[in-house]
Amino acid sequence: MQTELSRKLGVEHAVFGFTPFPAVAAAITRAGGFGVLGAVRYAAGDELKRDLDWVQAHTDGLPYGLDVVMPHKKVEGVTEAEVEAMIPEGHRQYVRDLLARHEVPELPEGEKGGWRITGWMESVARTQLDVAFDYPVKLLANALGSPPPDVIERAHGRGIPVAALAGSARHAQRHKEAGIDIVVAQGYEAGGHTGEIASMVLTPEVVRAVDPLPVLAAGGIGSGEQIAAALALGAQGAWLGSVWLTTHEAEMHSRRLTEKLLAAGSGDTVRSRALTGKPARQLRTEWTDAWDDPEGPGTLPMPLQGLLVAEANSRIQHHETEALLGTPVGQIVGSMNSERSVQAVFDDLTRGFERAIDRLDRIAGSA
Amino acid sequence: MQTELSRKLGVEHAVFGFTPFPAVAAAITRAGGFGVLGAVRYAAGDELKRDLDWVQAHTDGLPYGLDVVMPHKKVEGVTEAEVEAMIPEGHRQYVRDLLARHEVPELPEGEKGGWRITGWMESVARTQLDVAFDYPVKLLANALGSPPPDVIERAHGRGIPVAALAGSARHAQRHKEAGIDIVVAQGYEAGGHTGEIASMVLTPEVVRAVDPLPVLAAGGIGSGEQIAAALALGAQGAWLGSVWLTTHEAEMHSRRLTEKLLAAGSGDTVRSRALTGKPARQLRTEWTDAWDDPEGPGTLPMPLQGLLVAEANSRIQHHETEALLGTPVGQIVGSMNSERSVQAVFDDLTRGFERAIDRLDRIAGSA
Repeated sequence: MQTELSRKLGVEHAVFGFTPFPAVAAAITRAGGFGVLGAVRYAAGDELKRDLDWVQAHTDGLPYGLDVVMPHKKVEGVTEAEVEAMIPEGHRQYVRDLLARHEVPELPEGEKGGWRITGWMESVARTQLDVAFDYPVKLLANALGSPPPDVIERAHGRGIPVAALAGSARHAQRHKEAGIDIVVAQGYEAGGHTGEIASMVLTPEVVRAVDPLPVLAAGGIGSGEQIAAALALGAQGAWLGSVWLTTHEAEMHSRRLTEKLLAAGSGDTVRSRALTGKPARQLRTEWTDAWDDPEGPGTLPMPLQGLLVAEANSRIQHHETEALLGTPVGQIVGSMNSERSVQAVFDDLTRGFERAIDRLDRIAGSA
Repeated sequence: MQTELSRKLGVEHAVFGFTPFPAVAAAITRAGGFGVLGAVRYAAGDELKRDLDWVQAHTDGLPYGLDVVMPHKKVEGVTEAEVEAMIPEGHRQYVRDLLARHEVPELPEGEKGGWRITGWMESVARTQLDVAFDYPVKLLANALGSPPPDVIERAHGRGIPVAALAGSARHAQRHKEAGIDIVVAQGYEAGGHTGEIASMVLTPEVVRAVDPLPVLAAGGIGSGEQIAAALALGAQGAWLGSVWLTTHEAEMHSRRLTEKLLAAGSGDTVRSRALTGKPARQLRTEWTDAWDDPEGPGTLPMPLQGLLVAEANSRIQHHETEALLGTPVGQIVGSMNSERSVQAVFDDLTRGFERAIDRLDRIAGSA
């Protein structure tokens, strides 16, 4: 499965695997794909350093990348405390009431909210980059628009191509104008932040919009047949995130959450602002229902919503509160029905791709 | 582009074109595809007879089909007048106010609402079938669940396979149990009634769910590359509806509506209950906004909403009221940017398909 882009990046298969777990990222790279480690959960530079050391030691010199969440526009001189102060008391009370109704205990003494997502703050993301640039990362991806110009310049200075996610052709064009090298077209069916245009329509639109830049298709891809579909639509590779969540290597910290993922159907996700304030696809739970409830206070804009719910999410995760326990995941969760190794998933992807090509050749050949 | 199903149906290409226009249906069949005439707009049997005569005379003996909108469950002894009486006066006033605000004139004397959709009523659909079974139709499709058992039996008695649309794997399984022969998997991005699962995920799910029944992929398909993607996902053909709306042969009755379609982007549609009471993708207009407005009265359930807005839609169409003028159409409207003949669209589809296969072969070959 070789495209111009995968050849350029020196990987065997044009399969890009996004994951927050170092062991998964390394295993994707070892399997012949391109592992991309999501950095948004690393609040401290030394934790990221520890995990990049590990990835570096377990990828046999093969290429891997880093995904940050960096706002394009700088927010000058605003502290996290000042942002926190903008959260209305009514919303805080709604969170307390929800947690009380579901009898979610406090976090144990000394336990900090492990899921506190501060990586979206530019200062944190810049610390992550300072760390990452000490490693031979071969791709820098940004999940939140184009990164700031100086960051693109810094990456290019080191020969590192920069990728950015886009949910519309217009969004993708802005990335191209900002000097981005690779656009990840994130379809409606994808896990995490996503727009309203489905991959079947979005992928070719983005390919046309940013030509000749290479496009990776994201959203709805968890099988080799879906990779073949994405490449038929003009993508130079597939970007997969959800499918790795139920691999043995994924450190999900919650057995119940893994079981929820294994049991969920494609209709069990929802595009909700509950997690960050922007629409992100995730498992539908009583938690997302509460935020999407027209009788409730509704969600706050990014980044307020993320700060509002950070500790609550940590408590829900820690205590594995069944009804509220969720995670970002795409509609392909319906096909994630068994736990396997990353290598086994990868083997299925390449076999499914070959099956799809054989089938298409038969269909085309008899035309 | 030959699959087992297209061979069985005797068409050159596994491309199924759904359209309310006889000239489009016939042209699709003549081009080597399978034209399917939508019957929902035919209130009277003699109008359908006239148009089927025309299709029969213009298809050179090649196969074509009919699409009806028939409820699976019989509603016994309820008249249209009794259903009309269930519409709350507040909703009627909301329609009058909307039309008044946009200064939409009455219909001219003697002009009946041409867009009055009564084909969903079982009595009307049965009349349509009585007419259709006099013609050598080679496929009977139903857009609203499985048709009633006696209808399936009647079609099978004449050797006519029956197709039904499904927006989820569960829905598709029910079709299989009801004796349906072909399932049309209608993705989120499709025009008209549609569910929440995007084609990239829905197609393989439905293929697995109804195996060994053949599946047609619908939603997001307007190019040969998208057909290749659908077939890679396991479909035995592609079902295209929107792409024909801007062909020369389409009798759109409103120049402004055609221009709106040509100008619209993929983000200019909305899944709204405004038209029928069930979610259907259509151009987003001030009309759909008014029905989706949380300050408004909201929509009524099917079939009340359709009856409520029927005359209003006729007035909007007749007077081409720019702000309110819409039509069911899928997200591929963003790529419908020029008016062409059906044959030209078809040539593009087959060429695009071949391009996609060549590209995939190159990608697979160098793996």
